Amino acid sequence: MDLNADLGEGFGSWTMGDDSALLDVVTSANIACGFHAGDPSIMRRVTGQAVERGVAIGAHVGYDDKAGFGRRFLDVEPAVLRDEVVYQLGALDAFARIAGDRVRYVKPHGALYNTISTNEGQAAAVVGAIVDYDAALPVLGLPGSAWLRLAAEAGLTVVHEAFADRAYTPSGTLVSRREAGSVLHDGTEIAARCTAMATGGVIEDHEGGALRLAPDSICVHGDTPGAVEIALQVRRALEGAGVALSPFGR
Amino acid sequence: MDLNADLGEGFGSWTMGDDSALLDVVTSANIACGFHAGDPSIMRRVTGQAVERGVAIGAHVGYDDKAGFGRRFLDVEPAVLRDEVVYQLGALDAFARIAGDRVRYVKPHGALYNTISTNEGQAAAVVGAIVDYDAALPVLGLPGSAWLRLAAEAGLTVVHEAFADRAYTPSGTLVSRREAGSVLHDGTEIAARCTAMATGGVIEDHEGGALRLAPDSICVHGDTPGAVEIALQVRRALEGAGVALSPFGR
Amino acid sequence: MDLNADLGEGFGSWTMGDDSALLDVVTSANIACGFHAGDPSIMRRVTGQAVERGVAIGAHVGYDDKAGFGRRFLDVEPAVLRDEVVYQLGALDAFARIAGDRVRYVKPHGALYNTISTNEGQAAAVVGAIVDYDAALPVLGLPGSAWLRLAAEAGLTVVHEAFADRAYTPSGTLVSRREAGSVLHDGTEIAARCTAMATGGVIEDHEGGALRLAPDSICVHGDTPGAVEIALQVRRALEGAGVALSPFGR
Amino acid sequence: MDLNADLGEGFGSWTMGDDSALLDVVTSANIACGFHAGDPSIMRRVTGQAVERGVAIGAHVGYDDKAGFGRRFLDVEPAVLRDEVVYQLGALDAFARIAGDRVRYVKPHGALYNTISTNEGQAAAVVGAIVDYDAALPVLGLPGSAWLRLAAEAGLTVVHEAFADRAYTPSGTLVSRREAGSVLHDGTEIAARCTAMATGGVIEDHEGGALRLAPDSICVHGDTPGAVEIALQVRRALEGAGVALSPFGR
Repeated sequence: MDLNADLGEGFGSWTMGDDSALLDVVTSANIACGFHAGDPSIMRRVTGQAVERGVAIGAHVGYDDKAGFGRRFLDVEPAVLRDEVVYQLGALDAFARIAGDRVRYVKPHGALYNTISTNEGQAAAVVGAIVDYDAALPVLGLPGSAWLRLAAEAGLTVVHEAFADRAYTPSGTLVSRREAGSVLHDGTEIAARCTAMATGGVIEDHEGGALRLAPDSICVHGDTPGAVEIALQVRRALEGAGVALSPFGR
Repeated sequence: MDLNADLGEGFGSWTMGDDSALLDVVTSANIACGFHAGDPSIMRRVTGQAVERGVAIGAHVGYDDKAGFGRRFLDVEPAVLRDEVVYQLGALDAFARIAGDRVRYVKPHGALYNTISTNEGQAAAVVGAIVDYDAALPVLGLPGSAWLRLAAEAGLTVVHEAFADRAYTPSGTLVSRREAGSVLHDGTEIAARCTAMATGGVIEDHEGGALRLAPDSICVHGDTPGAVEIALQVRRALEGAGVALSPFGR
Repeated sequence: MDLNADLGEGFGSWTMGDDSALLDVVTSANIACGFHAGDPSIMRRVTGQAVERGVAIGAHVGYDDKAGFGRRFLDVEPAVLRDEVVYQLGALDAFARIAGDRVRYVKPHGALYNTISTNEGQAAAVVGAIVDYDAALPVLGLPGSAWLRLAAEAGLTVVHEAFADRAYTPSGTLVSRREAGSVLHDGTEIAARCTAMATGGVIEDHEGGALRLAPDSICVHGDTPGAVEIALQVRRALEGAGVALSPFGR
Repeated sequence: MDLNADLGEGFGSWTMGDDSALLDVVTSANIACGFHAGDPSIMRRVTGQAVERGVAIGAHVGYDDKAGFGRRFLDVEPAVLRDEVVYQLGALDAFARIAGDRVRYVKPHGALYNTISTNEGQAAAVVGAIVDYDAALPVLGLPGSAWLRLAAEAGLTVVHEAFADRAYTPSGTLVSRREAGSVLHDGTEIAARCTAMATGGVIEDHEGGALRLAPDSICVHGDTPGAVEIALQVRRALEGAGVALSPFGR
């Protein structure tokens, strides 16, 4: 099983999360590329640390919007978005290569991630950028999203992820953050759900039924100290259950 | 002989110069990488046009300062500058590769170009970035600059350039822009000087003496309509004198 | 009658339109405030020129998006948008006061203008900013927009504008730019329509019917050389028809 | 005695220091204006909190350089810098007025503060901006700086500050941060020095001599949790010594 998390989301003198601690937990790092967060020196440092620890480098591409941390929909033209994704891929790959590895996958960030689950124009733009840049790069996303469907149609390898701390509907989609109980906070419960997901078991959906997810990767969070603790709890539970942890595809 | 000029220096809805006209004149294009100017869509368009016309793609790396167009000294730490240059190289190279070629050389822009002619810390940072990214990339600059000296010491190929429209001192350095007569405006005179430079002849220095420059490349400007005309005049004069024009190193 | 146009939309070394020529045509200047375009030195220059020529200074507030020139919808939270509008108002007013006048009205720019014609959350945010900053400031907009309705409800003075070069539906709304014939290009026709609007006459709507608009201000464009010519033609036609030109409200 | 500190230095989703805790310690708040740090929503929040607590609002103007947090010298032209300072003053003043007060003084930030201690061109630019905007605004700075000298010559009220945690030379200038012992870390020692400064006593200079500073304001820091603790220790020591704390000039 693969564990992925967002890293390298500081900017200049500002920090976000504990990259170093999180790199000891995850097997895949979604690294910000300087558009929604991150800067060249952070990218060099985090890619270097990822390679040292055997963590796969993913391009966490986002909208060009540091003021909003990439969390606000921006109605950018698809052709422009495609070029922005290429730009980010090339920039991150430079650091990945200097560190002795290369970008291994792509996972969009924040509002872009949410938008392309349904917005086909922007989804196709991101897919097009990856096809342009390197059609061998796998893409990470939610099963059922326009983004993964278009990526598959374009011949890209799609990787399904599940969220460690989010509630699911009976049909396997995420419960909206606006609903009560949509985000789980209990580390023990989260770790148990991840273990179930990783071993072919079922989790309880938001209405009390049994739901079987079969993710290729589980997304954990790390932007608060408590979140790193929970991520670590997930990792330990998986290891305790005999689940081998490694970047997907290895 | 090679003719180089700065291209792709628009930003979003703002334009600068006539990229398309200039690409019919030069053999090497110094393409802005999104820091002092340029954006992903401009980079894609200009790299594509350059490849179509057989023009070599150079990375015109600059300070992260769009408000100042990269023309103001910024006391950025060398380690940060090195990372910023790597970032710009990787981003531009992505578009160059998509267009079917790759970045062929590096020429710093504006205040960075001027600074590293003497500032060894920043010069070493730019050199270090290129060694990190691809030590086979030639670098373009002024003979006698710290930048070219450190580049040569690091094993990089250095390419000497001369400026078509600038006056020179008897020792072969540029006359400061603050002095009268430092910039030439007469197209016929400029073209004649370029022809002399390209055919082993001498030009008149600022004090009336004979000066022999032996550039590998001549830099022309294109950020005004008149400048494109002069650049074209230079090209025609060189061709008329039997000087073959092609990117340096080919 | 008042004529308004967008001005001060350069940025650093980049220019947009001919501010000086346009200031000889219009009576109200919508001046960019550094978010979608403009910068402090442009703001000082244009406010100074406007005061010299008796042109009223308007705050052309926009999304914080220079890369998109404020022409792309950004799903910014209303509370944040309200603060961004206050910031822009305060900054422009500083230059207006130094020039001996002050900001006289507010007209949102581009995608913000379009968005708040229907998006009540963002419309209320812009209204709230003006109420916070100076509830005596009139606001300029399209009749029928959520923006003007909420502004009026909040006690702001609303000013109706018409577009010199746009086709109208029979109900007085703009024909979408996506439809053929939505933008007029013939200066004589445009000038005649403006004269009709300004003298209580009717114009032909998009379906051939007669439409009576009664604008307080007419918006002309100036971001191309041809546009300035048309704007001048409008001004001359109005003057020829005996229409007195002055900033609205004077 | 007045205690001043830098506040409002977050940006979007990124935080810096604990503004709320620091506002309970200081009597004057140097509030970032969106150029080196800060954004409109932070400016509204911090100005509002400052007014609630009777803390004076100061404009902490800086270079337009978020990537470098305003800590890197930027060779901006004085005319441009003057306009940038006006812009920042107008923007912050808008929020100060909405909160029921107004900007009460100006203190430049970081590299700008350091630069204008000797660079007369940039110092005159900042002075010129304040004279333009409101010549009644006092300015805060180091005794002996070009900035305060030019400000005084222009008729501005100058306010001398001392640094709570910095070592001084026998002549009363700051010991360079590059030297050992230039920054003090012991809260008890720092508090004792501040009490001495505030009560007409002497402190020990870097060479062991007695130095009498007579500051109008003491600058404390708050960008780390420990720093807030020390700032609080300073305040308590001053209060314990019977020193009345209030914004300078009140």
